[in-house]
Amino acid sequence: MQFSSSLLENAVNEFAKLPGIGKKTALRLVLHLLKQDTGDVQHFSEVVARMRSEIKFCQRCFNVADGDICSICANSMRKAEMICVVENIRDVIAIESTQQYNGVYHVLGGVISPLDGIGPDQLNIESLVHRIEKEKTTELIFALNPTIQGDTTIYYIQKKLEANPATASPLRITTIARGIAFGGELEYADEMTLARSLQNRLPVERYVR
Amino acid sequence: MQFSSSLLENAVNEFAKLPGIGKKTALRLVLHLLKQDTGDVQHFSEVVARMRSEIKFCQRCFNVADGDICSICANSMRKAEMICVVENIRDVIAIESTQQYNGVYHVLGGVISPLDGIGPDQLNIESLVHRIEKEKTTELIFALNPTIQGDTTIYYIQKKLEANPATASPLRITTIARGIAFGGELEYADEMTLARSLQNRLPVERYVR
Repeated sequence: MQFSSSLLENAVNEFAKLPGIGKKTALRLVLHLLKQDTGDVQHFSEVVARMRSEIKFCQRCFNVADGDICSICANSMRKAEMICVVENIRDVIAIESTQQYNGVYHVLGGVISPLDGIGPDQLNIESLVHRIEKEKTTELIFALNPTIQGDTTIYYIQKKLEANPATASPLRITTIARGIAFGGELEYADEMTLARSLQNRLPVERYVR
Repeated sequence: MQFSSSLLENAVNEFAKLPGIGKKTALRLVLHLLKQDTGDVQHFSEVVARMRSEIKFCQRCFNVADGDICSICANSMRKAEMICVVENIRDVIAIESTQQYNGVYHVLGGVISPLDGIGPDQLNIESLVHRIEKEKTTELIFALNPTIQGDTTIYYIQKKLEANPATASPLRITTIARGIAFGGELEYADEMTLARSLQNRLPVERYVR
């Protein structure tokens, strides 16, 4: 693409670095900003820069936070003894959006994946064990994606907790339910999901609310 | 969506204001920026703010420019006597990307559209007439979108130029060719396009290069 302004060209190139945004989309976004008030664009730019420079990670659960402790950990109405283990911040946002979970979180920062060079030491696993030792955790809920890496991570953490007398019991370890999604069609479900959802069938009174 | 950080939430809301970007995409972009170096995000933010505050519009053709005159008007290698009239900056970029046009431009800033409240006075038409009077323009090429509004705009400007003795002649007025696009299929072309492309047929020697 040929631009007659280097200011425009630089802005398009910066937007085109974002994931899923090509040159044409970047140009559309930049031309949109060009039509907005200078003050609005200034505000956009400041909010983005502040987000990156001022955001912190919760010292307890590694979720994003405005201070040292995130608003979920700081909320005394939530059950601190129930920890939901997730891969990343996006999963926290997804679960929070259901408005059905009242415990706290622990963000691993990924899952164990030797092929990608991610071992247990790169993840927030040690801090999770310390947390369970120190806080009186009664339930650990794994909400990881159902992949081999996710299952390996669950297995690894479970073994680690069992081997440690301070965390071995009476901790209840669960995973979120796998099965046919609401709105999903049986005939299009993969065999694994369908087989598991048959094995883990529920009494109807627990299904109908 | 529930966020545990207002910094994150504000950044997502700002991105979600951009055209074609919803909340989920905005979150993806913000989480991507969160993983980048603080310096890189600072740079992104500065480039965007500078683009809006420092960009100028060429005093001659109303294209975007870094100074008072855009790089196309300032280029003495280009034929200043041939003016291509376009609707907006994006059209300039599209034509420039073909690397086939060696004249200059005039950006109208839209087309005449009474239903949207856009009359000739809201567009850069007066300045185009002055330009043709002053500069020794020999050809005016309309590259507007083939809509009723585009055709109205061409008709209006043409009548205005004919009525003015200083611009009436020997100015040649043309429009870019309409027809079946390269790679287009005849059977899917609309009747209007097909009919016009038959009327305006070309001798084969002009087609084969």
